[in-house]
Amino acid sequence: MHASRRSEVPGFEVMRILGRIEQLRDAGREIVSLTAGEPGSGAPPKVNQAAAAIHARNTVLNYSPALGIMPLRQALSAHYQRWYGVNVPPERIAVTTGSSGAFMLTFLAAFDAGARVALARPGYPAYRNILASLDIEVVDLDCGPQVRFQPTVEQLEAAHAQAPLDGLILASPANPTGTMVSREQLSALSQWCSSHGVQLISDEIYHGITFTHQAVSALESSDHATVVSSFSKYWGMPGWRLGWAILPEHLVDPVSRLAGNIALCPPHGSQLAAVEAFSQDSLDFAAAQVARYAAAREIVLQALPELGWGQVAPADGAFYVYAHLGEHLEQFLDSRRYCEALLEEAGVAVVPGTDFDPVNGHAWVRLSLAPGPETVRAGVERILAFHSRPDAAALSGGEEASA
Amino acid sequence: MHASRRSEVPGFEVMRILGRIEQLRDAGREIVSLTAGEPGSGAPPKVNQAAAAIHARNTVLNYSPALGIMPLRQALSAHYQRWYGVNVPPERIAVTTGSSGAFMLTFLAAFDAGARVALARPGYPAYRNILASLDIEVVDLDCGPQVRFQPTVEQLEAAHAQAPLDGLILASPANPTGTMVSREQLSALSQWCSSHGVQLISDEIYHGITFTHQAVSALESSDHATVVSSFSKYWGMPGWRLGWAILPEHLVDPVSRLAGNIALCPPHGSQLAAVEAFSQDSLDFAAAQVARYAAAREIVLQALPELGWGQVAPADGAFYVYAHLGEHLEQFLDSRRYCEALLEEAGVAVVPGTDFDPVNGHAWVRLSLAPGPETVRAGVERILAFHSRPDAAALSGGEEASA
Repeated sequence: MHASRRSEVPGFEVMRILGRIEQLRDAGREIVSLTAGEPGSGAPPKVNQAAAAIHARNTVLNYSPALGIMPLRQALSAHYQRWYGVNVPPERIAVTTGSSGAFMLTFLAAFDAGARVALARPGYPAYRNILASLDIEVVDLDCGPQVRFQPTVEQLEAAHAQAPLDGLILASPANPTGTMVSREQLSALSQWCSSHGVQLISDEIYHGITFTHQAVSALESSDHATVVSSFSKYWGMPGWRLGWAILPEHLVDPVSRLAGNIALCPPHGSQLAAVEAFSQDSLDFAAAQVARYAAAREIVLQALPELGWGQVAPADGAFYVYAHLGEHLEQFLDSRRYCEALLEEAGVAVVPGTDFDPVNGHAWVRLSLAPGPETVRAGVERILAFHSRPDAAALSGGEEASA
Repeated sequence: MHASRRSEVPGFEVMRILGRIEQLRDAGREIVSLTAGEPGSGAPPKVNQAAAAIHARNTVLNYSPALGIMPLRQALSAHYQRWYGVNVPPERIAVTTGSSGAFMLTFLAAFDAGARVALARPGYPAYRNILASLDIEVVDLDCGPQVRFQPTVEQLEAAHAQAPLDGLILASPANPTGTMVSREQLSALSQWCSSHGVQLISDEIYHGITFTHQAVSALESSDHATVVSSFSKYWGMPGWRLGWAILPEHLVDPVSRLAGNIALCPPHGSQLAAVEAFSQDSLDFAAAQVARYAAAREIVLQALPELGWGQVAPADGAFYVYAHLGEHLEQFLDSRRYCEALLEEAGVAVVPGTDFDPVNGHAWVRLSLAPGPETVRAGVERILAFHSRPDAAALSGGEEASA
């Protein structure tokens, strides 16, 4: 008996790091973890109150409709009107089991085996791993600092010339870089996709968590795009497993049929409670969390000259800083070793870029702002002390200095 | 822009029926619905109490480990020891987003595109639809009354001789027939699978809901089998989206890696609360529901001679009666028309067998016992009245009788 070839998904370095953090904490070390892609706030209190009431009443939670309960789809429709001024009928909104559920359903609905789907590198690794498990060909777009870590029409033209593309996955703000595409870029990308029969899937999960300007939705420039998002980030609800997809007309029935077989429905209690995510109290709560991420971001940006890192991605939004190791690269050779030394010696955990970019990630690290300003400040101070520790120079020469 | 070929999943007749029930109820008709594959009880009160407390405390629900929280995996391990006397270490237990999540993960982990997987017809339609969407070939085993609706080693031999099989999906008790395989049959099937390199996936979601004798787990005769189950049926928690897979050693790492990309984790709050599903109170609550299904089953079995249906599947377990239309087939021509007339004229909804068996299902219907004895009694009385209505004979002659 053997497993399938398509299950040969690369493991994530972050999983090893999380395991090591647990070991160190169990051994009594105090660790500052800046690894997490999840808020520390929990859900808005109004959402928790609604959920508590649902369970206190012993509400029967059977299967909901496959695409979710209508009140939540209506609330999402109103949300898109309010935030973006776009009119999305609830019938085009599929509530899903997290954005993960939305990706699985829309990838299956849009792409057959052998399809070619382009995405930016660095990027969220699950995109490529889900696509590969469905026998869809991943077409890497090398999106370094020169293109602000986002795909360009020129890159799409080049990839399409090699063999026709079937899809493009865009993320703005992106993980791990936090960079956003401008309204003009997004419009150009979505128009290129429409005119070339390429299905655009726009991951907008970090919308709301922006620092420099509001994020633009693909829905503002395209009726053909699929938008994927979730309650996990802005509303702080990753464990509730609740997301959604805004579908173009041609994918509504296919996603509905697939959902009824593959997922049956998203979590019913989460759906009932999440209607409260759009109350003013909950939106205020979410905005207050964004202010905390912004404060954490300021701490890192102000420390940059001292940190001695090289290029840093703009971090327009999301809650990450993606930084080149700069002057530290020579000493540690790659980000995996840097992260290991930082964790073991200074008790600070960040994630090596190799999890997001198998080609260039060895020179980069991702630091999460999600733990908030107090934790990020403590982490930055430890990193600075680590960089200036007495044995740093000796280590860089390959010798162990006595303290 | 067009949808994928693999999203061309057949729609379910039951969805059309559920929509029609809603219309009729909105118009003031009182409908007895015996369609549902979901309990009416809701979760055990202890589980709801735990969930209410989690939310009342504003517990931060971030991502859990990809395979679920260890206390729940340990509770499941103890459950298998208690119910079946088998020792399954928690490390081999993956908590999943319903049994649906377990199917997606184990199908991907076990089978590549082009693999051949056998399953019984009639059967739960999502098996074949998920498999097809993953480009896995479905090998139908024609399992009628002559084999008690369950696959035999002879059928597997025959299918394997045509082209090697890669997998077998077994369901005992089965949906829609409720029939179970005996210990000897299960042992023979799992041994045949092991010795032919065929991966056995045993759907045991209806375990606990049995009327004649306890169900046997594939784990009792095989270390190679994957067992899939859920809190949806026995514990009455379909909307909580919580299931599990017991994995053979060779699938643990593949499922773990895939889960971290495809699902991230099962609903975290559901997991925390579900630990209470194994409390004595909760097990007593679940057993009381089974007694209600058993009472509903008795009502149908006793009415069988009067109902004039033909063969009826044994209904050893699960909460369905799958019945041949018998003397009514000639009049209505197929089960779809029968179900439509029954709903429109008598206000009782059952599901045509075509949803479970595209070849022979036109002659069969599935009646759900899940609504409990009161509802089932009301439904049976209406069905009897429908069969003996004055215009029945005239209708069978193709003419409309005046009342």
